[in-house]
Amino acid sequence: MPSLRVAAAQINPTVGDLQSNKAAVLAAVRAAEEQGCDLVAFPELVLTGYPPEDLLLKEAFVADAVRALEEVAAATTSCVVVVGAVLPSGYLGVELDEPADARPLLAQNVAARPLANAAAVCANGRIVGVTAKRLLPNYAVFDEQRWFQPGRGPHPLFRIAGAVVGVVVCEDLWSPHGPAANLAEEGADVIVSLNASPFSLGHGDERQAVLTTRVAETGAAIVYVNQVGGQDELVFDGGSLVVNDEGHLIARAPQFVEYLLIADLDVHGHPEELTEAVHEVSMTSRRQGPAGEGALAAPLSDEGQAYEALVLGTRDYLRKNGFTDAVVGLSGGIDSSIVAAIAVDAIGAAHVRGVSMPSRYSSDHSRTDAEELASRLGIRLDTVEIEAAHVAYSAMLEGLLGNEPVGLTDENLQSRLRGVLLMALSNDTGAIVLTTGNKSEMATGYSTLYGDSAGGFAVIKDVPKTLVFDLCRYRNALAESQGQLAPIPVAVIEKPPSAELRPDQLDVDSLPPYELLDPILAAYVEADRTAPELIAAGHDPELVARVARLVDIAEYKRRQMPPGVKITTKAFGKDRRMPITNRYRP
Amino acid sequence: MPSLRVAAAQINPTVGDLQSNKAAVLAAVRAAEEQGCDLVAFPELVLTGYPPEDLLLKEAFVADAVRALEEVAAATTSCVVVVGAVLPSGYLGVELDEPADARPLLAQNVAARPLANAAAVCANGRIVGVTAKRLLPNYAVFDEQRWFQPGRGPHPLFRIAGAVVGVVVCEDLWSPHGPAANLAEEGADVIVSLNASPFSLGHGDERQAVLTTRVAETGAAIVYVNQVGGQDELVFDGGSLVVNDEGHLIARAPQFVEYLLIADLDVHGHPEELTEAVHEVSMTSRRQGPAGEGALAAPLSDEGQAYEALVLGTRDYLRKNGFTDAVVGLSGGIDSSIVAAIAVDAIGAAHVRGVSMPSRYSSDHSRTDAEELASRLGIRLDTVEIEAAHVAYSAMLEGLLGNEPVGLTDENLQSRLRGVLLMALSNDTGAIVLTTGNKSEMATGYSTLYGDSAGGFAVIKDVPKTLVFDLCRYRNALAESQGQLAPIPVAVIEKPPSAELRPDQLDVDSLPPYELLDPILAAYVEADRTAPELIAAGHDPELVARVARLVDIAEYKRRQMPPGVKITTKAFGKDRRMPITNRYRP
Repeated sequence: MPSLRVAAAQINPTVGDLQSNKAAVLAAVRAAEEQGCDLVAFPELVLTGYPPEDLLLKEAFVADAVRALEEVAAATTSCVVVVGAVLPSGYLGVELDEPADARPLLAQNVAARPLANAAAVCANGRIVGVTAKRLLPNYAVFDEQRWFQPGRGPHPLFRIAGAVVGVVVCEDLWSPHGPAANLAEEGADVIVSLNASPFSLGHGDERQAVLTTRVAETGAAIVYVNQVGGQDELVFDGGSLVVNDEGHLIARAPQFVEYLLIADLDVHGHPEELTEAVHEVSMTSRRQGPAGEGALAAPLSDEGQAYEALVLGTRDYLRKNGFTDAVVGLSGGIDSSIVAAIAVDAIGAAHVRGVSMPSRYSSDHSRTDAEELASRLGIRLDTVEIEAAHVAYSAMLEGLLGNEPVGLTDENLQSRLRGVLLMALSNDTGAIVLTTGNKSEMATGYSTLYGDSAGGFAVIKDVPKTLVFDLCRYRNALAESQGQLAPIPVAVIEKPPSAELRPDQLDVDSLPPYELLDPILAAYVEADRTAPELIAAGHDPELVARVARLVDIAEYKRRQMPPGVKITTKAFGKDRRMPITNRYRP
Repeated sequence: MPSLRVAAAQINPTVGDLQSNKAAVLAAVRAAEEQGCDLVAFPELVLTGYPPEDLLLKEAFVADAVRALEEVAAATTSCVVVVGAVLPSGYLGVELDEPADARPLLAQNVAARPLANAAAVCANGRIVGVTAKRLLPNYAVFDEQRWFQPGRGPHPLFRIAGAVVGVVVCEDLWSPHGPAANLAEEGADVIVSLNASPFSLGHGDERQAVLTTRVAETGAAIVYVNQVGGQDELVFDGGSLVVNDEGHLIARAPQFVEYLLIADLDVHGHPEELTEAVHEVSMTSRRQGPAGEGALAAPLSDEGQAYEALVLGTRDYLRKNGFTDAVVGLSGGIDSSIVAAIAVDAIGAAHVRGVSMPSRYSSDHSRTDAEELASRLGIRLDTVEIEAAHVAYSAMLEGLLGNEPVGLTDENLQSRLRGVLLMALSNDTGAIVLTTGNKSEMATGYSTLYGDSAGGFAVIKDVPKTLVFDLCRYRNALAESQGQLAPIPVAVIEKPPSAELRPDQLDVDSLPPYELLDPILAAYVEADRTAPELIAAGHDPELVARVARLVDIAEYKRRQMPPGVKITTKAFGKDRRMPITNRYRP
């Protein structure tokens, strides 16, 4: 019975940074070699980072990425390296579907040859074989049919330590009776699956279920490796898995960290049934002694996953874009409090600075709560009253408007005066401003453009308000379980939410209570139901009509928001492409 | 010889407004009937408006759109109506490719049935037949593979006034030896082509060339109808065409206006060669008397097309989103001057308001030039000094920063103080703020987030600075040729560009001269060349490296810009999807 030691190298590449990504791949290859691995697998498109988006339209970028792959291959030994890479059609025999539409290649500025989202199998200093992704996702956050053509023809097979191994890329594993099943029919005992699978709540459970189903369907073991790290709106959670050909989960990597997951895999293969030619790589295993410990990481709770996703997504956006420090406007409210806590967990208290900017309408507790939070987090807090600017603008606007600003004009003005302050601090110090709006506010437009939404990264833009409360409680409980001070003051969690832009203002003056609002938003935004459908399902008609209208008319605001971490099944941004100009009002 | 009177109904739908779009279709049908037309063709997806984007993920929206189509069909007479519509797979026999990937339909919130981007042929109160678009563009601004599956099987044919007519949708006409050629082989004498083809400079000439080539290839006449109007970033120029089966252009609609283009088409068909079944609609023509006059509109110059595109795109964004009035910050510079002129041409001088906001660094001529412009345009101009706010902020920031703001911090501050003023005026009056940044500035990041870029629509964001100068001269010459006062003062065009954010500042202190900058930007941004390629092509290495770096690091700013009209082959926005986090620096 063949038996091989496999490694899933769950690494964190940076989009476009070909040299650093190559170095990270080679470092993990050396580590896998040292532990006697027969095979080490890397994520989808690991050398370019995922998703490289329109960098792929630059022919020179593709050429540079191919060169990086060839340099990785040249450095391989008898430990087989499976690496995700962009390849032009025809490269080492890569076969792709002919484009049905000749126009983009003729008339648009796209690469002259169709491209493959490919996997390259490298060993002994060369690329042994390549295969191209068949199913190119083009829904939700994915645009792969913009850049790639699907692979076709039989998959190459590789004999490694006596086992027959095939490779699929990401989506190819997900479709029932799809490419993974074909690969097993062609003779693979082991399917290596390279992924760049973005995190969303619940996706990890789905992933493990799909693997188990696929093993039952195919009889092949699966080595599933996923990218980890943040890339603009997306965060990849890792959580790589190895399931043997009997359907047992034998290894699971922790989520949200780089990890080299190693497992010994016994293979009950049937090599005599091979229908396709096989690349002979090695007949005996390189391994010596037992595999390392700790290969079955405990799963995180939903709140734990969401929180870690926000921390990693924030940390990587800052780090990969060259920011060391962050600024947060602290209102004493729950949104800015959780954002500050996430920032501290992402980059450390010494690198986070809070600014309290009270106005004539700010309550005393908003100042003391902000101070208490900053003290618990150990971050610097400055306080700057905005009154002087408020007075100056009231006078300047009186001439222009015919009267002093009142109502929404005055509320938005205060919010923008704070935005100007934070941006000046950012310009002066080089620190990025983190904005504090949550998903319920993004959805309903309960925010001020260029005011509270001014900044470089919107940490909790995909976190519904009700989940913001849960995350505060989660973070406090985590601290207390570790014998530490809970970072978020209880008063912040318990007081009624308020924007404090006029006397005695409360969120519930403008919005439905969040316990009613968030389920309607989930149905309207994430599940794409319409107002009549929600009313038919028993929601209050007036409330539904009001919420639907708020969501529809706020699209222009969302279009100008900074990016933030996607954690739900449908985030605002490239996940939900609604027209701004849209008069559908059923 | 069959001869039929055809109409191309170049109308301006609004995305999502099914009832109004249906009414506009029916009004044009009545007009075509009155003029004895045998057939009237409407643009692609005219009932939903194009592009409806993720509205198509709402099942209820698709159902509502199908109902609108059925209501159009019910109102038809013997004048055949060809209308673009979304249809679910299987509707009246619509055949689509099976989705290769079962996952989106199973796991994501997309419509339960695959959708067709279809054309419906309606007459005598019913839908006679339907056909689905084969080639679904998924490049540049297009995402059609996100929502649709391609049509398959033979095209339906229709005998109308004795001629055999087939229908294709947009892209199907563009690919050499593609669906249009198949349709002619199947027996069509006349190809009706429904389009929603966005404007870009040079695209109109390309379009006419493609039609001529296609007629030469197929021997069939082509009736080409295009949508007109603005939709978020896109503007559709109309410019519908009729080319007879001898390759002669017999009718051309003007661009940028709604138009019912009517032509009498003699058909040298070969009905005996039919390989497919044909829907018998009518054997004799409805027409009486000659077709109307003026069916060959004179083409516009490039500057004329760009200018009209900007006017229509701005007018429709405002109108379709419920704005009647606009505000523009007037600096006395060329960018704000052309934006004000476009706004006046779009919505009328009585609805445009200028605000001059001088700072301590503003020159005298910036005020007088703004006044002169406002006077020539006949718009209201208010002047508000920002000094009081500047002083207030300098003091507030001194405590926070340890010193008064200087350098870029102080320059950005002034820009943001103006943004706050304009947004307060917008909040108070309901007028939209039009921003004034050009494409050269967007590309290089030469703008202030939440400052000069604060507003609802960025009119010239896709206009390179050198073209801004050309458009000013074009607009002035147009006025003079009509015996009117040139709107843009000569001083505005002739003085060196300056942001006036510090004493004696000029753009050339921070940026290369625009005559050098714009060609590099065109190659780097629109043609996707890299810095090494530009250097190899003979550009100055230091200059190229500087420009490439400026473009790369400004992506985060562009992501928060308001939408604006695409007029080049590649605009920022959904036309160019670069990651923000991107360390590719070849």
